[in-house]
Amino acid sequence: MNFKVVLKILGILLVCEALLMLPSLGVAAYYGGGDAWAFALSFLITGLTGVPLSFIKTGKKRIYARDGFAIVALGWILLSFFGSLPFYISGAIPSFIDCFFETSSGFTTTGASILTHIEDLPRGILFWRSFTHWVGGMGVIVLTLAILPSVGAGSVQMMKAESPGPNPGKIVPKVGETAKILYGIYIIITIVEIILLKIAGLSYFDAAIHTFGTVGTGGFSNMNSSVGSYNNVPVEIIITIFTFICGANFSLHYQVLKGDLKAPLKDDEFRFYSGVVILSIILITINLYGSVFNSLWESLRHSSFQVVTIISTTGYSTTNTETWGMFSKIILFMLMFIGGCAGSTGGAIKNIRFLLLFKVMKRELLQIMHPNAVYSIRFGKRAVDEKTISEVLGFFFMYMVIFIAAVLIISFDNLDWATTITSVAATLGNVGPGFGMVGAAGNYSALSVLSKIVLSICMLIGRLEIYPILLITMPSFWRRINI
Amino acid sequence: MNFKVVLKILGILLVCEALLMLPSLGVAAYYGGGDAWAFALSFLITGLTGVPLSFIKTGKKRIYARDGFAIVALGWILLSFFGSLPFYISGAIPSFIDCFFETSSGFTTTGASILTHIEDLPRGILFWRSFTHWVGGMGVIVLTLAILPSVGAGSVQMMKAESPGPNPGKIVPKVGETAKILYGIYIIITIVEIILLKIAGLSYFDAAIHTFGTVGTGGFSNMNSSVGSYNNVPVEIIITIFTFICGANFSLHYQVLKGDLKAPLKDDEFRFYSGVVILSIILITINLYGSVFNSLWESLRHSSFQVVTIISTTGYSTTNTETWGMFSKIILFMLMFIGGCAGSTGGAIKNIRFLLLFKVMKRELLQIMHPNAVYSIRFGKRAVDEKTISEVLGFFFMYMVIFIAAVLIISFDNLDWATTITSVAATLGNVGPGFGMVGAAGNYSALSVLSKIVLSICMLIGRLEIYPILLITMPSFWRRINI
Repeated sequence: MNFKVVLKILGILLVCEALLMLPSLGVAAYYGGGDAWAFALSFLITGLTGVPLSFIKTGKKRIYARDGFAIVALGWILLSFFGSLPFYISGAIPSFIDCFFETSSGFTTTGASILTHIEDLPRGILFWRSFTHWVGGMGVIVLTLAILPSVGAGSVQMMKAESPGPNPGKIVPKVGETAKILYGIYIIITIVEIILLKIAGLSYFDAAIHTFGTVGTGGFSNMNSSVGSYNNVPVEIIITIFTFICGANFSLHYQVLKGDLKAPLKDDEFRFYSGVVILSIILITINLYGSVFNSLWESLRHSSFQVVTIISTTGYSTTNTETWGMFSKIILFMLMFIGGCAGSTGGAIKNIRFLLLFKVMKRELLQIMHPNAVYSIRFGKRAVDEKTISEVLGFFFMYMVIFIAAVLIISFDNLDWATTITSVAATLGNVGPGFGMVGAAGNYSALSVLSKIVLSICMLIGRLEIYPILLITMPSFWRRINI
Repeated sequence: MNFKVVLKILGILLVCEALLMLPSLGVAAYYGGGDAWAFALSFLITGLTGVPLSFIKTGKKRIYARDGFAIVALGWILLSFFGSLPFYISGAIPSFIDCFFETSSGFTTTGASILTHIEDLPRGILFWRSFTHWVGGMGVIVLTLAILPSVGAGSVQMMKAESPGPNPGKIVPKVGETAKILYGIYIIITIVEIILLKIAGLSYFDAAIHTFGTVGTGGFSNMNSSVGSYNNVPVEIIITIFTFICGANFSLHYQVLKGDLKAPLKDDEFRFYSGVVILSIILITINLYGSVFNSLWESLRHSSFQVVTIISTTGYSTTNTETWGMFSKIILFMLMFIGGCAGSTGGAIKNIRFLLLFKVMKRELLQIMHPNAVYSIRFGKRAVDEKTISEVLGFFFMYMVIFIAAVLIISFDNLDWATTITSVAATLGNVGPGFGMVGAAGNYSALSVLSKIVLSICMLIGRLEIYPILLITMPSFWRRINI
């Protein structure tokens, strides 16, 4: 482990975070909610912690895979820790554990909240809360499309190494360049959505808040009843389209922006993702029509919004899904595990892994029937090697192990089945709201301190594709000398 | 597909089933419950269907893998179909779907019941109901230790090919011999348990019923409140020990009977299984003590019984687990997925697969830290090849896909989370009772016809290690000529 390099980069990250607090300071000062001083103080604390670290002199330049994992895991944890300061110092959230939960929920673009009266909070705080989504979303894009492949993880991206666009395959020398392209796309999408939401009738402030929640696929709103508060169909349509886009691979957006409008249609994962979305919308619409809503249009309206917001792991809501039939709930529950596409801001297991796993399942059956035949699994024109297949299968198992282990700890709270199970699915998958007490009309405030800590860890584990957080818990990871 | 051979063997199976109805006919006649004629008629129908098929002349003698899968899948379905006749003809169960559910629950050694007033039924019917467990249990042992490996499936057994005892590795010429040894062990265990239960105070009838349910790890009782009806500690201890034994690999029992008493302790899977059992008992005892029971002894008594009955996929109960804390329920829910050991009468995913998967998980983490190191996964002294690992990973994924697909269909019934989710876990894992409406104090009677059919299929899929039932649903499986 190259501690000096790790500390230096973490220091730089903290300096960046301090600077990223300035817009919220500006918003707080502009609206005069009395929270400006909290941002000023947080800015100082974060900056003064980061600056000395960022000046550490490092002899070596090379970063090894382990350093990369340590930076990613500790970086996200530190960002969440220091990002909690404005909430804590301003007194907006009295308990520090709650502050940490809310902030890691922000940076991991989960959108699970412990707040019960969101609309009472000062605007600077609300802005910062949603801004963490935007920062986290960008961080994830860069992480999964640039950093992870460069440290030898992210096999999912490796599968797509031949795709045109910002090339995540041979990255190390290109991390900077790739990141710049991605930043650009991310900012373009952000600006377009803010303008559209403003045109549709929201204030600039509300438009910005919901855009941050959308492009980061986070889901924090400044309204107690989320997007449903506006009861504004154009707003819902804009948010639905943008969450769908941000749940898709940003490499595809790059290709589309370069003029290859058919790129998404040629992409196996995008077709799978779209298929799941369309099928789920149809099934839920049928289930809602006549039972929850009397109009087919209302059923379609809410089912479309809800399906896209869950599969993209955003988690906004337009209605209380707690009143929906079990069939619709189970579909949404399944979508919490599927999540977005690789290279999107969406979380969970990801469509590309499921697509691959279904191909493996089909091959397994064919293989049993024809033991001597040789079947290879393809993505587009490319055969996927066995090592990648085994890694993806292993990822699925690990995801389920972490899921059930967390459910076991949450069950200490002795709550109902829906809350116990979906709170973990919704945080591990970075979705936000689940069902039961943590449903669209509820929040995470009533859970115990232990549960809140565990669910915060789940958000981080899910967000960082499992490995970084698990690795830093292994003592052998920290040994200086290794094989 | 060698249709003639398949039909002939299915015919022989039906003849066997007809003969296996005779003991129940005897019991019915002896107790005079008015159900003897139903057995006589069922015997005739089953026998007369089987005999002509069994006389089909087959030119070829060789059985291919696909024939084997067809025989296993269709065999279990046909046995359940004809096994339903006594229930239907006697009028003990009015709906044929319910009869099929109850019988496949019997032959798959699941123990899920649609009966609400068990004690009102005639004794012949009760005997047949439990006897299907005994027959099914023996069928499963022979299937997993002799037949599946001989048709190239059952990679889990292949891992143990070097273990002494009835050798499941090079089987084809030895199927008969292996089966005979296993029959012997099975019958010895049966006789010993009947005697012990009789000594502990049960009638011979009740002792036989509960022994059938135990050695087949089925769980049908002739009492409405299952084993709890007796409130007899020695009976509970005997049943706990025998379910634990029958959830372990029968190859180990062979070795122990041959004098190698340390064989189980040297077996990785058995140690894992025992470890899970002990840990679960401790955790649940702590959770129950003070909250559900005021005495530590009562907590230990019921937690031990319940842990062993669930992990062995038996499903008897001594108390209503619905009143237990969520923590205990989640542990039991997890055990429903783990299940027994390979080569036992227990169902679900099996300990050996989980053990292997955890080893793979550990390797994955080590591999990321040390990309250039080569790690092999070992069982005892033997390295497991990558193909087996990938098959086991694939099995886990397939199991979860089937689980969630079935949950989705059950959710049409619009029941609560506990019932929707655990009914599938408990049938797919061949456990029997779940939680909620299908909990220890409930049953499956209130579910819709569609749900009962789906859960019956789940029992069969779980029992036959997934592949046979999935394969017979694929059109290409039935084509005469293949690659």
